[in-house]
Amino acid sequence: MRKINVTIWNEFIHEAAPDAAGEYIRRIYPEGIHSFLKQKLAADDLTIRTATLNQPEQGLPDSVLKTTDVLLWWGHCAHDRVDDALVERIHQRVLDGMGVIVLHSGHLSKIFRRLMGTRCRLRWREVGEKERLWVVAPGHPIVAGVPETFTLPHSEMYGERFDIPDDGKIIFMSWFEGGNVFRSGVAFRRDSGKVFYFSPGHETYPIYHDPNILRILSNAIRWAASELQPPRVTPTPEPHEPITTENPLKDLDPELIHGKR
Amino acid sequence: MRKINVTIWNEFIHEAAPDAAGEYIRRIYPEGIHSFLKQKLAADDLTIRTATLNQPEQGLPDSVLKTTDVLLWWGHCAHDRVDDALVERIHQRVLDGMGVIVLHSGHLSKIFRRLMGTRCRLRWREVGEKERLWVVAPGHPIVAGVPETFTLPHSEMYGERFDIPDDGKIIFMSWFEGGNVFRSGVAFRRDSGKVFYFSPGHETYPIYHDPNILRILSNAIRWAASELQPPRVTPTPEPHEPITTENPLKDLDPELIHGKR
Amino acid sequence: MRKINVTIWNEFIHEAAPDAAGEYIRRIYPEGIHSFLKQKLAADDLTIRTATLNQPEQGLPDSVLKTTDVLLWWGHCAHDRVDDALVERIHQRVLDGMGVIVLHSGHLSKIFRRLMGTRCRLRWREVGEKERLWVVAPGHPIVAGVPETFTLPHSEMYGERFDIPDDGKIIFMSWFEGGNVFRSGVAFRRDSGKVFYFSPGHETYPIYHDPNILRILSNAIRWAASELQPPRVTPTPEPHEPITTENPLKDLDPELIHGKR
Amino acid sequence: MRKINVTIWNEFIHEAAPDAAGEYIRRIYPEGIHSFLKQKLAADDLTIRTATLNQPEQGLPDSVLKTTDVLLWWGHCAHDRVDDALVERIHQRVLDGMGVIVLHSGHLSKIFRRLMGTRCRLRWREVGEKERLWVVAPGHPIVAGVPETFTLPHSEMYGERFDIPDDGKIIFMSWFEGGNVFRSGVAFRRDSGKVFYFSPGHETYPIYHDPNILRILSNAIRWAASELQPPRVTPTPEPHEPITTENPLKDLDPELIHGKR
Repeated sequence: MRKINVTIWNEFIHEAAPDAAGEYIRRIYPEGIHSFLKQKLAADDLTIRTATLNQPEQGLPDSVLKTTDVLLWWGHCAHDRVDDALVERIHQRVLDGMGVIVLHSGHLSKIFRRLMGTRCRLRWREVGEKERLWVVAPGHPIVAGVPETFTLPHSEMYGERFDIPDDGKIIFMSWFEGGNVFRSGVAFRRDSGKVFYFSPGHETYPIYHDPNILRILSNAIRWAASELQPPRVTPTPEPHEPITTENPLKDLDPELIHGKR
Repeated sequence: MRKINVTIWNEFIHEAAPDAAGEYIRRIYPEGIHSFLKQKLAADDLTIRTATLNQPEQGLPDSVLKTTDVLLWWGHCAHDRVDDALVERIHQRVLDGMGVIVLHSGHLSKIFRRLMGTRCRLRWREVGEKERLWVVAPGHPIVAGVPETFTLPHSEMYGERFDIPDDGKIIFMSWFEGGNVFRSGVAFRRDSGKVFYFSPGHETYPIYHDPNILRILSNAIRWAASELQPPRVTPTPEPHEPITTENPLKDLDPELIHGKR
Repeated sequence: MRKINVTIWNEFIHEAAPDAAGEYIRRIYPEGIHSFLKQKLAADDLTIRTATLNQPEQGLPDSVLKTTDVLLWWGHCAHDRVDDALVERIHQRVLDGMGVIVLHSGHLSKIFRRLMGTRCRLRWREVGEKERLWVVAPGHPIVAGVPETFTLPHSEMYGERFDIPDDGKIIFMSWFEGGNVFRSGVAFRRDSGKVFYFSPGHETYPIYHDPNILRILSNAIRWAASELQPPRVTPTPEPHEPITTENPLKDLDPELIHGKR
Repeated sequence: MRKINVTIWNEFIHEAAPDAAGEYIRRIYPEGIHSFLKQKLAADDLTIRTATLNQPEQGLPDSVLKTTDVLLWWGHCAHDRVDDALVERIHQRVLDGMGVIVLHSGHLSKIFRRLMGTRCRLRWREVGEKERLWVVAPGHPIVAGVPETFTLPHSEMYGERFDIPDDGKIIFMSWFEGGNVFRSGVAFRRDSGKVFYFSPGHETYPIYHDPNILRILSNAIRWAASELQPPRVTPTPEPHEPITTENPLKDLDPELIHGKR
């Protein structure tokens, strides 16, 4: 069985900051969120690489992107620094079938907004309040082995209204101690690619240490990769479909036949 | 009652071409598709303007765009010439509540692809074959007064697979003489704005002369404008929601309270 | 302008109970929830009637049902007593275009389950906890004039997972003090009819006294009635479509032509 | 690996008719559609049984139904003879996770209408015209190995408008020689169960002999069974969720705490 090629991309700024905030975060993720996830998600059917913003080609040269089956994306304060050309390459790769898992503050990333067609805004508050997640789609592969509800003791609040399109399949909804609710796990399809947005994951809390969170990400990787196959339909450029003997058209007025665009 | 401000944008290239093809099209639309539609869609509750690619600011300076309730968009061979900055302004305006009706070959326009998040490709063939439309959403405002099925004697074929997201409400499906089918009228919502894609409208056939087609566009304008109201939610930038006396949070660990971003 | 004919149906059992619980509820709704809503929702464009379970034909003879544009349904402990034949008549009427607004514990009513095709179960808890509603679909007619968020001081908790189909347009999501979340306002389309489920409305709290709740119900009535028109498509029984001169089929093998069912 | 238990149910009336029509059909399906499909779909990972209307308990006693992972359903002229109690049992089993594949004229079966909540009507014509199917959801497991388009030389026309809910994922759309279009393959989710409706399959044409059609059914069986797992959420009856030490609620007014229902 071919292994799934996973690339975990992280802007890797908060964890590298030379100040007290950075030091605080390094207690949770000593080598960055990407390295932590790579270690925790390791499995026999996965080949996991990491990539960060400060690497050449922002970590995602074609040689990496084109051999990635599922891309995880963590970004927050440097969305604007991601090259538009890279966003375009990722976008095309998703439409061609690569899965993408957008984490936490990646809701404002260029790639997520590009895939959604909306602003993807939400309400937020960072006071370390409790978050309680609820499974809304039992039976979905992403929730396999995940309890119907579980709690994160400290989380950044992300709250409605979240302006995403209506075709998201809601997998999780979250409750926050301070009075907010959120569609915290939502799955989309964009052409041949699958997209999963999952909101828990603030850098100052050890959320990716939580076994349920890791289980969800682990499931999501397999789900996002599950239909990988060569794109079979709608090649680039748009297909012109000629009249064939199979589908003859009779009695056409020659004056009306123009198209050789 | 406040009138609905409609702007009909047309790249206006085919109809202005100095060659035989242009001459052929001018027999159908002497002053361009935009001018023709402006005349045919005129009504007491509408204020209709037109705009074209070659005008200053590509016809859509802020003074026009910000006073447009519903934008009709016809483009084909010059999608790439539309400024990215203009596309961005239109996009924001749609998300803020402006309706947009994307016509025919506008499926590949920058604004439609931006709103969809996909490539919006399809199959096509231009041999003047017959198209038969079917109403799939009876009762929808866009089909009021439109027969359950009607025929266009000559049309450009647009066929599946059309790679749009799944949240489109299918209003029309089309049958083509040569053996193809198409979701020819699809309605979307993107944040506060409504989007309607309607495929019939090739420049070399008198499709916009058809009373059913005009009725559909006329209905779509009212539908796209029907919920115009000041955007009330999710202002820019993202709202920070403080803890208030209404929603107190007790026992927070001060060390966990970071966010002053 | 033709008025909208509204019928408010209530099983009217809790409010009529001769015990202490009934007495408690009568302090809030002296003449039943139906009478209270009739009074509070009164408006110039509405003609409102009420109907209750104990009336002849369970309050909804054909003479009433066939002249009802929008039906409100409040039921809880007597779902099983509603005649299957009545449920069938209501179902057909909804599919033909009548709007229906299902209130609170009506999630388990026969008519709602019939329209959904699922069990419509949820979690619940009745301890008088606080409920906070969030508008998830700004710009939707049902939320016109409703604040982005508002609170009910005491409510019965209805919580996820709510097993409804995925085509519901989520209008409201609720937060509950005890740690639960819920899709508390969801809009559906079933053939020509519109369906709105709205969960707040427990009989032992004065929820229908709340101006926001009344505003929502008031909006929902207009929304549910907004596309009333004679059903134009797919008459009963299923339409056989003959081959016509408009759509000739040539070269058919007579042996293959069977169907005169 | 546990095998998938498939049960193919057929009303088995047309193929058994003692008249010329029956004789005609028996040339195509000598022992009934169910037997034919059982033979053609046989595979190492499947255990296939058949069941027919005239068997005891209409072929689906609890001992069969409760051990069925995926049910195929072919019915046409005897929908009314299927016991309501059996429909109820099938419905519950689907909601609990059994997949169901509804074939051809099963669009009017009690079980499909129950699952949809609508009348599921369509237009039809039986003149042996050509049907051309188009894949609309490339990458979906149901279309694996199926060409983007293929033709059935003779088919019964099923045409729009098909009054199903909007949450159907459109997998196939069909073109008919006589001028009609149809959503001929649509996938739904109802609670824990998957539903696939697939329209080709008229008894007087050898449609189930077509390798593409068999491939689609074969794929659909695996798809419908793919998430089989014990239902983990929302047990029967509705769960009451108590306040726990995990989610304490303070300051509740004892007078407001009623619920011991």
